[in-house]
Amino acid sequence: MNKPYPDDSMTLHTDLYQINMAQTYWQDGIHNKKAVFDIYFRKLPFGNGYGIFAGLERAIKFIKDFKFSKSDIDYLREELNYPEAFLDYLSTLTFTGSIRSMVEGELVFANEPIVRIEAPLAQAQLIETALLNIINYQTLIATKAARIKEVLDDGIAMEFGSRRAQEMDAGVWGARASYIGGFHATSNTRAGKMFDIPVAGTHAHSLVQAYQDEYTAFHKYAATHKDCTFLVDTYDTLRSGVPTAIRVAKELGDKINFAGIRIDSGDLAYLSKEARKMLDEAGFTKTKIVASNDLDEYTAMNLKAQGAKIDTWGIGTKLITGYDQPALGAVYKMVSIENEHGEMEDTIKISGNPEKVTTPGLKRVYRIINKENHKSEGDYISLEEEKPHEQERLKMFHPVHTYISKFVTNFEARDLHKDIFVNGELVYETPSLKEIQAYVQENLDLLWHEYRRSLNPEEYPVDLSPLCWENKINLIDEVKQKVKANINKNN
Amino acid sequence: MNKPYPDDSMTLHTDLYQINMAQTYWQDGIHNKKAVFDIYFRKLPFGNGYGIFAGLERAIKFIKDFKFSKSDIDYLREELNYPEAFLDYLSTLTFTGSIRSMVEGELVFANEPIVRIEAPLAQAQLIETALLNIINYQTLIATKAARIKEVLDDGIAMEFGSRRAQEMDAGVWGARASYIGGFHATSNTRAGKMFDIPVAGTHAHSLVQAYQDEYTAFHKYAATHKDCTFLVDTYDTLRSGVPTAIRVAKELGDKINFAGIRIDSGDLAYLSKEARKMLDEAGFTKTKIVASNDLDEYTAMNLKAQGAKIDTWGIGTKLITGYDQPALGAVYKMVSIENEHGEMEDTIKISGNPEKVTTPGLKRVYRIINKENHKSEGDYISLEEEKPHEQERLKMFHPVHTYISKFVTNFEARDLHKDIFVNGELVYETPSLKEIQAYVQENLDLLWHEYRRSLNPEEYPVDLSPLCWENKINLIDEVKQKVKANINKNN
Repeated sequence: MNKPYPDDSMTLHTDLYQINMAQTYWQDGIHNKKAVFDIYFRKLPFGNGYGIFAGLERAIKFIKDFKFSKSDIDYLREELNYPEAFLDYLSTLTFTGSIRSMVEGELVFANEPIVRIEAPLAQAQLIETALLNIINYQTLIATKAARIKEVLDDGIAMEFGSRRAQEMDAGVWGARASYIGGFHATSNTRAGKMFDIPVAGTHAHSLVQAYQDEYTAFHKYAATHKDCTFLVDTYDTLRSGVPTAIRVAKELGDKINFAGIRIDSGDLAYLSKEARKMLDEAGFTKTKIVASNDLDEYTAMNLKAQGAKIDTWGIGTKLITGYDQPALGAVYKMVSIENEHGEMEDTIKISGNPEKVTTPGLKRVYRIINKENHKSEGDYISLEEEKPHEQERLKMFHPVHTYISKFVTNFEARDLHKDIFVNGELVYETPSLKEIQAYVQENLDLLWHEYRRSLNPEEYPVDLSPLCWENKINLIDEVKQKVKANINKNN
Repeated sequence: MNKPYPDDSMTLHTDLYQINMAQTYWQDGIHNKKAVFDIYFRKLPFGNGYGIFAGLERAIKFIKDFKFSKSDIDYLREELNYPEAFLDYLSTLTFTGSIRSMVEGELVFANEPIVRIEAPLAQAQLIETALLNIINYQTLIATKAARIKEVLDDGIAMEFGSRRAQEMDAGVWGARASYIGGFHATSNTRAGKMFDIPVAGTHAHSLVQAYQDEYTAFHKYAATHKDCTFLVDTYDTLRSGVPTAIRVAKELGDKINFAGIRIDSGDLAYLSKEARKMLDEAGFTKTKIVASNDLDEYTAMNLKAQGAKIDTWGIGTKLITGYDQPALGAVYKMVSIENEHGEMEDTIKISGNPEKVTTPGLKRVYRIINKENHKSEGDYISLEEEKPHEQERLKMFHPVHTYISKFVTNFEARDLHKDIFVNGELVYETPSLKEIQAYVQENLDLLWHEYRRSLNPEEYPVDLSPLCWENKINLIDEVKQKVKANINKNN
């Protein structure tokens, strides 16, 4: 009995059924059969027209570190009674498969493989839960951040959500995802340290309460900080907070940089407009107005429509939790497996819900970019061996409403997957966070504005190649036959 | 330059403004002034009638470990340019204050102090963000779990949400919070290992896909696992999955325990009723039906109303994210501070929104339990020195609608706060998770059913003592006067 077990590895961060399946595969001798799984989601979050992929860095770390610790094995033995020979197998396991993936900051859309795992069957299962856990959250938040940033336009966007994040990992990785999505800074200092994100923040109501008086509090703060953004709503924004901030700034003159005031309650449209007038009249035309208080893209759009004078937006709860849709439903589905003759055979999962039917086979995703206007015509999912970039004229058609089709010429077919792991070896070097953020902006330039609208955007085409589509249809037929045969056996 | 900095401490898991305020306090020599802060939320989540407090265990760990690491200090010096003398102060800092708190599993309601921090001012600020981050999430999920459990009644409840949790911490701490709220098991094996929670799970669709055939897959699974719950919806639940499961179970007889079937898609009411009939007719009357697929208290209530034959409920996304309200808005507010004469002086934050006005002073929370029927009459917030348990007849009145009042006699006044830290020393021993779960059930027995209803429950009384109420009203007046005086100065 080694309880309590130390939390010294992430490898058990998996649903128990993965271990149970691994045991069956291992005992049956098929645990090293090569299997291919795709990670994708079925629907873009928030009704947005695009997603921003994030999470690869942490997913890579999880896979690099994938190894059952001694205490993991002790736990599986002592509490869950797995047989010793199976535990011996687990305890030697590292990831030896290959992963091709989109890179962080890539635009992602529904029903296209973001990550493709080719690995020994048991290994591929054991990493599923953690990969989804990481990618679902970080992609959700990067997407939400980009969506908010679209509305804020040239406004400065600050991530202020740590206290409302869903536990500590979400605080720091959510800050990172927000930065990828276009935010300028975070208030989470640990995230700043871990990821080299700019950090921001001045003071809270408690500073004013500690001095029991705004005038003293602002003076004391200014005595230790050159850049001052005073919080003005502790007692009464327009009658007390703003005039006191102006008074202190006038008294201190060049000794401080009166960078801003922050308003955290009340009617932000009215208060910001009035505060702007007061600041301008006092000569502080460059002093910025920071607003916070449960903001998101909807409130921001409304405030802007009302002419609110907000320069900097502190966005917390609604961003860090993806409040209006707090989960992305990315799934991890087997699309191919080695058969008993050592050949790969494509697999499918049929479902009563048509959108849940998987797309079989080892696939690639190409972004088809028009060389004339440098806008994207859509994404094109092909089977591995196809070479759309060598075609002169590409037929693109909707995978459900197949009559919707177009021919594209003079295009670049950009392969969106990069090699990350090859036979267990990490071959990808993560770019800096600033590069990832810049890559998002480059990518967004590929999209027509119709796809970037926050409300009811046009649907971006994600098409299957004719071969990929036929492969799917054929496999649906095959499975139907097989099920029918089985039903006869059961009766 | 020591970049990248290692993530070797949680102490920087704080909003930057806390450090900036600490700097001001330190330079002004008031950083060790004693300050009192309350943690509370203003509104119960999900429209529920009660909350379940969780998060104390991790909050304690954060405070015990509170110490800036060398790399924290390096980061603050090299990237944020804090002065060396201030960094010297920070680098010696540990938590030396006192914390009284409700214990995990306690019922909590809006506007009552859950945790009370009495500490040197700068320390109290520096721990705020992490405490809120932890407590907000874990309390939210424990409450959601209890709410779902109320609807499931004697149904078995499994937490299956890891893949949709908001990053990895939420996966494991959310599993723990769900267990506190009354769930029976989790699928997250790491959570099982860390917290000694029962783990559950059998197999996924991929097992069937790996064998390309349900019959073979079930047989192979059964060869390695005595307890079998077969997933029956990979191809066609009623025509293929259930009959195949029955066929395999009949073939294997006593060799396995045919524990259950799991249905993960389609109409769960119809499918579960039909599957029940098929199982019963085949003699498997004890085989359970497990359902999963985006379930929560609303779908569960509907399914039960339609007579669905579901014994075990696998709840994922909607639980682990608190989907319909993914953040609890607990705040951390200063209620008292040492003045220049070394005496404690109560503080208040006024707001345009009446519900945002804080309740000043060092306070206690008592649960007033009727000794005759052992039901709670409500919670009673008093000032520190009051002794409601010595009163024969207690007046309880609504703190906003003060005409709503009642007198209570023959009651027990249970002090809900326990000493956790006393002058920096941890004096509290965390009970086992099983004990916490049992404590929740004891607590729920104190509540009339009217407070436990999932839709439109009665509002549970959280009242202020007359002294506490007067103290608040007086302070509001005082601050108003002070602000008025200040406004005159500004004009």
